Amino acid sequence: MSTIGVPTPRRDSGPKVRGATRFTADIPVPGLFHARPVLAHEAHALITALDVDEALALPGVVAVLKAADLPLAASGRGRLYEPLARDEVRYAGQPIALVVAESEAIAQDAAGLVVAELEPLDPVLDLEAAARPGAPRARVGTADSGTGSEIGDAHAAVKAAGLDREQLSENVLGTALLEDGDVAGELKRSAAVVRGRFETPWIHQGYLETQTATAWMTPDGELFVTCSTQAPFATRDALAKLLGIATERVRIRAAPLGGAFGGKMMVVEPLAAAAAVALRRPVRLALTRSEDMAAANPAGAQILELELGAEADGTLTAIRGRVLVDRGSTEDFGVESIAALLSAGPYRWRAHRIEALGVATNRVTFGAYRAPTAPPAAFAVESLIDELAQRLEIDPLTLRMRNVLREGDRTVAGVTLPVFGAEACLERLREHPLWTGRAGLPPNEGVGLAIGWWPGGYEPAAAVCRLDSDGRLTVITGAADMTGVETAFAAIAAETFGVDPDRVRVVAADTSSAPYAGTSGGSKITYTVGRAVERAAAEARERLLEVAAEELEISPLDLEIVGGSIMPRGVPAKAIEIDELAGRILRFGSRHMPVEGHGRSAQSPAPQAAAHLSHVRVDPQTGAVEVLGHVVAQDVGRALNPALVEGQMHGGAAQGIGWALLEQLVHDDHGQLTTGTLAGYSLPSPDMTPPIEALIVEVPAPNGPYGAKGVGEAPVVGVAGAVANAVAAATGGVRPRRLPITTEGVWRALSDGSAQPTS
Amino acid sequence: MSTIGVPTPRRDSGPKVRGATRFTADIPVPGLFHARPVLAHEAHALITALDVDEALALPGVVAVLKAADLPLAASGRGRLYEPLARDEVRYAGQPIALVVAESEAIAQDAAGLVVAELEPLDPVLDLEAAARPGAPRARVGTADSGTGSEIGDAHAAVKAAGLDREQLSENVLGTALLEDGDVAGELKRSAAVVRGRFETPWIHQGYLETQTATAWMTPDGELFVTCSTQAPFATRDALAKLLGIATERVRIRAAPLGGAFGGKMMVVEPLAAAAAVALRRPVRLALTRSEDMAAANPAGAQILELELGAEADGTLTAIRGRVLVDRGSTEDFGVESIAALLSAGPYRWRAHRIEALGVATNRVTFGAYRAPTAPPAAFAVESLIDELAQRLEIDPLTLRMRNVLREGDRTVAGVTLPVFGAEACLERLREHPLWTGRAGLPPNEGVGLAIGWWPGGYEPAAAVCRLDSDGRLTVITGAADMTGVETAFAAIAAETFGVDPDRVRVVAADTSSAPYAGTSGGSKITYTVGRAVERAAAEARERLLEVAAEELEISPLDLEIVGGSIMPRGVPAKAIEIDELAGRILRFGSRHMPVEGHGRSAQSPAPQAAAHLSHVRVDPQTGAVEVLGHVVAQDVGRALNPALVEGQMHGGAAQGIGWALLEQLVHDDHGQLTTGTLAGYSLPSPDMTPPIEALIVEVPAPNGPYGAKGVGEAPVVGVAGAVANAVAAATGGVRPRRLPITTEGVWRALSDGSAQPTS
Repeated sequence: MSTIGVPTPRRDSGPKVRGATRFTADIPVPGLFHARPVLAHEAHALITALDVDEALALPGVVAVLKAADLPLAASGRGRLYEPLARDEVRYAGQPIALVVAESEAIAQDAAGLVVAELEPLDPVLDLEAAARPGAPRARVGTADSGTGSEIGDAHAAVKAAGLDREQLSENVLGTALLEDGDVAGELKRSAAVVRGRFETPWIHQGYLETQTATAWMTPDGELFVTCSTQAPFATRDALAKLLGIATERVRIRAAPLGGAFGGKMMVVEPLAAAAAVALRRPVRLALTRSEDMAAANPAGAQILELELGAEADGTLTAIRGRVLVDRGSTEDFGVESIAALLSAGPYRWRAHRIEALGVATNRVTFGAYRAPTAPPAAFAVESLIDELAQRLEIDPLTLRMRNVLREGDRTVAGVTLPVFGAEACLERLREHPLWTGRAGLPPNEGVGLAIGWWPGGYEPAAAVCRLDSDGRLTVITGAADMTGVETAFAAIAAETFGVDPDRVRVVAADTSSAPYAGTSGGSKITYTVGRAVERAAAEARERLLEVAAEELEISPLDLEIVGGSIMPRGVPAKAIEIDELAGRILRFGSRHMPVEGHGRSAQSPAPQAAAHLSHVRVDPQTGAVEVLGHVVAQDVGRALNPALVEGQMHGGAAQGIGWALLEQLVHDDHGQLTTGTLAGYSLPSPDMTPPIEALIVEVPAPNGPYGAKGVGEAPVVGVAGAVANAVAAATGGVRPRRLPITTEGVWRALSDGSAQPTS
Repeated sequence: MSTIGVPTPRRDSGPKVRGATRFTADIPVPGLFHARPVLAHEAHALITALDVDEALALPGVVAVLKAADLPLAASGRGRLYEPLARDEVRYAGQPIALVVAESEAIAQDAAGLVVAELEPLDPVLDLEAAARPGAPRARVGTADSGTGSEIGDAHAAVKAAGLDREQLSENVLGTALLEDGDVAGELKRSAAVVRGRFETPWIHQGYLETQTATAWMTPDGELFVTCSTQAPFATRDALAKLLGIATERVRIRAAPLGGAFGGKMMVVEPLAAAAAVALRRPVRLALTRSEDMAAANPAGAQILELELGAEADGTLTAIRGRVLVDRGSTEDFGVESIAALLSAGPYRWRAHRIEALGVATNRVTFGAYRAPTAPPAAFAVESLIDELAQRLEIDPLTLRMRNVLREGDRTVAGVTLPVFGAEACLERLREHPLWTGRAGLPPNEGVGLAIGWWPGGYEPAAAVCRLDSDGRLTVITGAADMTGVETAFAAIAAETFGVDPDRVRVVAADTSSAPYAGTSGGSKITYTVGRAVERAAAEARERLLEVAAEELEISPLDLEIVGGSIMPRGVPAKAIEIDELAGRILRFGSRHMPVEGHGRSAQSPAPQAAAHLSHVRVDPQTGAVEVLGHVVAQDVGRALNPALVEGQMHGGAAQGIGWALLEQLVHDDHGQLTTGTLAGYSLPSPDMTPPIEALIVEVPAPNGPYGAKGVGEAPVVGVAGAVANAVAAATGGVRPRRLPITTEGVWRALSDGSAQPTS
């Protein structure tokens, strides 16, 4: 292997550092109009009037679009189908009108002139209360809304399999129940049982580039959208449906992403596209930072109540759990099943009963965020596993090793696990000096262990490898590059084809002509598209050798590719340079077929795991928690490019520290966001981020390209759990139950002698 | 067959009729600068001074670029390497500077302010004289020019195989000699020998849209060119070389073509691209009509001297020929070989000796024009074949049938012919009432017969067929659509995949991501790329059936595609709609591979032929020739879409009538173009174009998609020959020797009793 496993810089880093990358908002578009949203100032209200006259009168304003002005061809509930609120405001910050003007400044001024009369309704903000039978509705509905149905209709459609629907409020939009075995009996017979109620807040993905989309219609009626998206094909399909345009007439070009982390999927595209279709002029909508904080697609709050049992030897027995996921005003995206699955941790249970409820509240829409629902789940279950170990006086790592899922085990969802590296990650930490030496730490310091996992997504993928006339290889995919996948594709193609990666270019084509690639999410692009690239490159190599064999009158089997040349084995004098041969193939009058390969893949899940050691110091006077160091050992299948993999691990750990200690979107009692800027919303800055040690564990994924699997989501999952366990170790038992773990919360717990601070 | 052979409209017609097509000059580009060339006012001169100060001072002018200002990385001679004349002007109209300004009008004004001091040299304009030893040079060269070499170097490099280099002037840039057998002996023994000297003029392709290109550099140093081109990949490669940019960093998007006919290949692209690279701003260069007439890439004049012999029974014996091709100031494109080949007509000869010389003169550059050199060749050889028939008193059709090339025969180039339909075309005309009834025509009317052929180009090609989530098929190629090829691709893909063509979209991707396709020229795109499309669609179909087979748990062999559904044979109740299955395949968590196919082709030539009957009336008082009707019988292999094929035949015949009777670019004694507008250059207008009867002959091309072959070039070739022979028939022997056949020329021949007018 000359390319695989070699650390090289991300291909997109250079242009980004040089300022040469053009993000969506930077791409000049002639005749562009700029849009600014008018955001609702109430969290729950009926729209009684929307006076746009003054705004329209402002010179330079082209249109002020209300919900009824959008040329929507499909009805339904949720952000996609309701890019502007029609009659009912569901969260503070929900767009209720869109001003389109000749400049962004004019649009902004005009947005301030739109007068919205809102009749306030009681906002539903308490997640737990919202789920209770008889709770006020987060959406009261009207005869005029969306589908014309009331929330009760949606309610009736919810499959509450195994659950007593009467015990759930009409705000419960989705449920999941995973149940097997005699949970009560197992818990009763357990040597130790621990339980806890955990709360995690709304958290923003924290991407640097705000949500941005530019859309226009071509003169011949094609809708063209350039946007900051992870999901070009899914956006194409969604906009086609929404706007009643044939799928083939919608073209999505995914611009370079300035961060995404799961949050960049069809948030602003429906609005920009609907406006462009309505006005037949190019329209750009770029959210401001505050709008993005208030009105995009962050992770929802969760409440997890878990109860775990174990035998005296540490063998886990049963888990019982109830998970509430705050779906805010999301009606078209449910994560209850995954939330239920992840709440059981990566462990074997004899019996389990976990229910998860997706609950509507009057908060912003819920979106994916790097391993959705996984960090809260790991925080909860890993805290309790740690308590079990403490209770049973078993080494926490040993207890985990004893119970961790292995290949062939079944998850609580009933799925048999393929190759799984959780155990190998724990093994890697077992001898780590931070772990072995933790007894000798100074007072008020502690080391916490946790493990996080992610089942891994998959989606069909295809790719093309094309030899160009100068002998360079072009890899063509339809994947949005969120995490450096193009750098990985280049390595895969170079290794497979047999050339230097400098000779490989990677192109992401737009949806009109790209080979299919799924959404860049679920930690799957390298695993799925990368596999297709590998096959495409292999096919292209084979075809190049066929041509060379014809030219040299020799069997392709006797040829090898060395140093940019094709040569008969052992006869370097007869070598043909690929450059020269390529030029001979690709010209008028050549009788050779082009050297191109097309690869496809269909994958099954390749679950990922990362184990963490977090080393913290807790100030006994103030309760302040400082992370002194963090170690993450992650099974990456195969590190195609260790530099990029380590980057993911560093980034995941840093984001996890944000979850653990800093971040939360705080809404006040009226549902107003009080942390709507980066001054108020605390992201982990470099000075808050400890040295992070990334330990790459390689348990090859059987069907991954060169054994690789997804690496993006796993490293964030277990961080908060490790930090929480470290706090417990440092404090002699203060067990955080709420994220973020605040100085005040720890101080209160230390002050009142409680071992279980509530905040 | 439900799609192949069914006449349907061209897909690009609708948008063009509606005005929705955006040609290169219509595509808005932000920050665009406009370029206007400063054209030389002498045909041959040294540039002694170029004063640009006044031009530069005009407000809005950004730059006035001279040759030395262009950032060229490669040196050489010819239009590509010398987009601006450096020291020596080679033709009147040659760009010597490029003004770039904020608007086209400003650029135009400024171009008028550039003061060029030119020291006139004697222009070399007489093609025959230019080829003679000792002739003045068309390029005197200087130490500073291009490569630093003098024309003598180029001269020395010319391979004058078999020719006496001493008998050729230094203006002869290329030669070809095809020779076999005892020509002198065969002619001596022949029962009849005819000879003639034929002249044809410079002719412009007559496309509606003038040459236009827009180029810009992306912030990260990628050169992006949108242009009206037939040759996206070749343009990419040429610009990369010229400007010293890696091939992969040059991206060409072929915009819809507003006519091309062979003339749209790298005429303005080097200038626009060099300016964009120099200025780092988008630059558009759109030639005016007059500039395009004076300074683009028309067909060169030719002089053909041929001598043909036959036995008494009409069996052809030998041909001797000398062809001069006026290459004007083209130094990088030779057509001598093809000119020599075509001058022999599609006939078997026992012996032949044909030499062709490419001669530099002080005229504009020479370019391809629909079957380059073929109409002059057919005009000459078909006139003489007709004379032979007359001399031998053999029916002209019979004589041609006796000698026409058939499969397995060798051409004068020594190539063994594959399947060839010339005979079938003649056969088709044999019983045509115009032919059988020609003896009964009124006085001064006549019918002429001629045949034209074209060997057919080929180039490697690839294509992708992709099933989309809505069940539609997308065909992706890199071919520029000059003649409706996308409509043909849709038919091929639909037929092969088994769906309605309405369900097939065709996309031409830019060079960064398109499967390779050669230049749209040589009548080969349907034949080469179409074959790749057929294979891609077949592969996609196979893969769709595989998925359906898995879903239905049945063998793919037992499945068929009927009416948009896949069904087990004879069990319509179990059918799955393709739309539904496609949606199931292409989604998150699907375990099926995408349904995509990739096809490639490598073709061998599929020569084309068309036979013509032209019916003319000659006014005996004035000499005016009127074409009353025209019949073209063309072997098209297989008419994938008869409407489009007939369109090609109509267009070819009409253009051929332009060659025969109307068109010529006339330069005066100073080399100045006197026919530089459409008022002065006579294109055949509808009232000059007779009813054209298109007879489709189908002799399937063995390797063509559904038997199809190229159809674009063949129909223009024989027209002028047929018209000339018709004039001879109508006048009792006035045999035109020069194109166009003018009223004055015929009148003079009629007046002086000469049977061979010189004009």
